[in-house]
Amino acid sequence: VSSAFLAACRGEPHDVVPVWFMRQAGRSLPEYRALRGEGSILDAIARPELAAELTLQPVRRYGVDAAILYSDIVVPVAAIGFGVDVVPGTGPVVERPFRSADDLARLRPLEPELDLSRVIETVKILVGELEVPLIGFAGAPFTVASYLVEGQPSRTHARTKTLMYSEPGLWAALLDRLADLALASLRAQVEAGARAVQLFDSWVGALSAQDYETYVRPASTKVLSGLADAGVPRIHFGVDTGELLGAMASAGADVVGVDWRTPLSAARTRVGPGVALQGNLDPAACLAPADVVTPMVRRVLDDNAGHPGHVFNLGHGVLPETDPGILAHVVDLVHAEGKVLP
Amino acid sequence: VSSAFLAACRGEPHDVVPVWFMRQAGRSLPEYRALRGEGSILDAIARPELAAELTLQPVRRYGVDAAILYSDIVVPVAAIGFGVDVVPGTGPVVERPFRSADDLARLRPLEPELDLSRVIETVKILVGELEVPLIGFAGAPFTVASYLVEGQPSRTHARTKTLMYSEPGLWAALLDRLADLALASLRAQVEAGARAVQLFDSWVGALSAQDYETYVRPASTKVLSGLADAGVPRIHFGVDTGELLGAMASAGADVVGVDWRTPLSAARTRVGPGVALQGNLDPAACLAPADVVTPMVRRVLDDNAGHPGHVFNLGHGVLPETDPGILAHVVDLVHAEGKVLP
Repeated sequence: VSSAFLAACRGEPHDVVPVWFMRQAGRSLPEYRALRGEGSILDAIARPELAAELTLQPVRRYGVDAAILYSDIVVPVAAIGFGVDVVPGTGPVVERPFRSADDLARLRPLEPELDLSRVIETVKILVGELEVPLIGFAGAPFTVASYLVEGQPSRTHARTKTLMYSEPGLWAALLDRLADLALASLRAQVEAGARAVQLFDSWVGALSAQDYETYVRPASTKVLSGLADAGVPRIHFGVDTGELLGAMASAGADVVGVDWRTPLSAARTRVGPGVALQGNLDPAACLAPADVVTPMVRRVLDDNAGHPGHVFNLGHGVLPETDPGILAHVVDLVHAEGKVLP
Repeated sequence: VSSAFLAACRGEPHDVVPVWFMRQAGRSLPEYRALRGEGSILDAIARPELAAELTLQPVRRYGVDAAILYSDIVVPVAAIGFGVDVVPGTGPVVERPFRSADDLARLRPLEPELDLSRVIETVKILVGELEVPLIGFAGAPFTVASYLVEGQPSRTHARTKTLMYSEPGLWAALLDRLADLALASLRAQVEAGARAVQLFDSWVGALSAQDYETYVRPASTKVLSGLADAGVPRIHFGVDTGELLGAMASAGADVVGVDWRTPLSAARTRVGPGVALQGNLDPAACLAPADVVTPMVRRVLDDNAGHPGHVFNLGHGVLPETDPGILAHVVDLVHAEGKVLP
């Protein structure tokens, strides 16, 4: 079956502008809240039938053009026993944060067949049920490192940057190990049937372009270039990354995520030809009524001007308080009005 | 006495690149922690001798080229009785957040002589003691509104944007009142002797350029253009504002603050000729040793390439864990190596 989503990722001709939403499976859906219950997301991810059903819910409801695996960016580090939990309402919390070279030993190589057996099982279930491509994903080295170093979500990333600036050798070793984990996890998801991957570097926009080049791009390149032969589009995403889009593209991305701060037309200039874009409606726009959202969706489509390399999405994840009816409206509008130039 | 700071704000010739730091008076200084004690910052601000001394401490220690009044952006709304406190470790907290048109009545006009008598007294004390210009400041309408609507600091500004999108008339009325408050507060500070003003729109970078134009710029313009005849440079600052710099300049700024994400050279193109820049070292760089900070400071200077319209600063406030010795090093380095082309 041909996929508008995969074609758009490759900038190839297709009929309809494809759309999916980051965190489309989540608390905004009543059927999610009913099925998911309380407790750590890591426990839910470890139940393949449940994780598969949570992945499928938004595909059924919205008719989006891609599914994204119900998982979390800390799954690989948790699986190798680094001691990470995801606390509801807070985010990832690390019992013993990464502090010194001794902590490198706590980051052993991933053995996907053993460490990610549940995730792989979920992917296999989904591949049998889905009519649209499944996107596998991993956390990028910087963003995962920021959780391991801070020990909890941080606004300033002060500890992370202190380590990065003060101990560049240790920092590079940490990111290299996290690159190996991400790569092994993504390869395993692709081998199980995922047809695209997204590398989430959600917080890398906290860095200047110079620091990104020096301290981050080598590790991100290791992940993305390590997937060059996998035959699937590689999406690379972060927020606040307006000044990093070109560098993130050249780390080896086929598609670069763009948040609502940067117009798609400006982003296109920055990533250059041959790289597709994903985005970029403000998730908060979906908290407004349909008559307010409609012109905002049209503005994104107009700004892209029919370029075939565009996957419609939000600029960050769906906010929990979003009305699913508005997301359904956005999908219908993109499908009805989005034009793809030949 | 001639001031390199004021000359740089106006893009006029001067000898030495001026430097000051946002939040230079604060927890990073041992003398601040010793004098300030615990309790709400609003109580400290209401004690003119104390507030003046806290303003002076970093000027004495670092030899910076400007002082910034020890105050807070919520002072005017607190002074008119909206019910705002600043909780240590959290930030501004509002007892009854702004929810509907009824709440507009809680935002009466500011009477600076009565409502800000302590602040004005602090300014007058400082003008008698300082050899460098004093910067007065206010919170910009969007950022103050975000606190009043959210009720507490927010990562997504979801409630704020929901109000903005869903009730644009009420939103505009709210921002217009907050513009009047900011303008009255800034005029009073200038009349008491402040020689420059900074309008802090710290969180406006959460908006797209289109939303900034529609929902924010009219109110910010009201504040800044209302000061056009005051004879002092108007600095306009926010973080994550790479795509908004041109619009923030045309709201009526003489100087636009730039965070570390956007190179000064790129920012210069975006604001156009005739507007000065302030920034843009990453505050987290000052958590690193001097040998790491030094090349980062030089990079900022090099990127500015001697343009006379440059005030050296951080891209956001000093982090509390910063070693004051590093900030002293940065000041000395900027003064020693910064070049100003004629």
